[in-house]
Amino acid sequence: MAPVTKVNGINIDQLFSTIELLKEQPELAKLKFRATNKWVSGTHSRATVKDFYGPGKEDTSRAPVSFDLDEPEVLLGTNQGTNPVEYLLVALSGCITTTIVAHAAAKKIPLRGIESRFEGDIDLRGFLGMSQEVPVGFQEIRVYFKIDADISDEQKEELVRMGEKYSPVTNTIKNLTPVSVQLEK
Amino acid sequence: MAPVTKVNGINIDQLFSTIELLKEQPELAKLKFRATNKWVSGTHSRATVKDFYGPGKEDTSRAPVSFDLDEPEVLLGTNQGTNPVEYLLVALSGCITTTIVAHAAAKKIPLRGIESRFEGDIDLRGFLGMSQEVPVGFQEIRVYFKIDADISDEQKEELVRMGEKYSPVTNTIKNLTPVSVQLEK
Repeated sequence: MAPVTKVNGINIDQLFSTIELLKEQPELAKLKFRATNKWVSGTHSRATVKDFYGPGKEDTSRAPVSFDLDEPEVLLGTNQGTNPVEYLLVALSGCITTTIVAHAAAKKIPLRGIESRFEGDIDLRGFLGMSQEVPVGFQEIRVYFKIDADISDEQKEELVRMGEKYSPVTNTIKNLTPVSVQLEK
Repeated sequence: MAPVTKVNGINIDQLFSTIELLKEQPELAKLKFRATNKWVSGTHSRATVKDFYGPGKEDTSRAPVSFDLDEPEVLLGTNQGTNPVEYLLVALSGCITTTIVAHAAAKKIPLRGIESRFEGDIDLRGFLGMSQEVPVGFQEIRVYFKIDADISDEQKEELVRMGEKYSPVTNTIKNLTPVSVQLEK
């Protein structure tokens, strides 16, 4: 076996062979991700992630992982979990970080470290249905990245722009993504 | 002390007094939620949630909670965490569930149980920058709710519609939410 070429912990042989494969068989690029949720009590619920679809088949190989969601007491909860909008920021944080790392790897730019912080504004009157003029969701999300690497500030800036441009979670939030919510009887 | 009135585990006295307070002092409705992230290796990073702002002050009372984010091996990862787009579905799941429960509580509708499932479609060619025509984020997210309660199907349908309308995460995803990503030097 040939030695595996890794940059930033990313197997770039696998990365480039994946790109070649998807050029030939674009249907293999179609993935489906999933979660389930069960209400516990009050603002406390528990989500579970296990299976996903792709590439080209159902993948049931992972063990299930569960997450508790709740609100702090001042927001009517029992503080038995991180709240949903905080999980959204967790999602965003991992997504931009991974995107920066993968795109740096593809350019063979080694990174020593990445740290980032995320903050979003919410007006509680939206959730409470007190005003049609107040947005219900995050009004704005601000993201700050520090990159430790032997590259210029311009190259770091370019990596941050790629992280923003190619991050699935960022694009889901920034764009009009349809969410259909149905009742099952 | 008067006994606390709870419906679905929600303290509705606190809920209604919060609404009255926010009518008088709308600035107390302004909340800020946060996360930080530190890259580990490859597609593996670790996010931490602790402080938030609101109502009217910094809240540093919660213990920090950390979350591992990674990708399965078939997606270039080491499978040491749930992936970012799955965390987005976790966020969505808790948010709509809590919104349904709180709005049902405000209407004094008791619920026995809520279960839900979430699925979203992603085309990997977007993330990989292979085509400008392929969306990078979720193309669509489908959500299915089951509600166990002694109410009519019409009332369940109405609760699901409220869950959709007043959920902060749903609105963040469905609408054009600005995300500013900056490099810190």
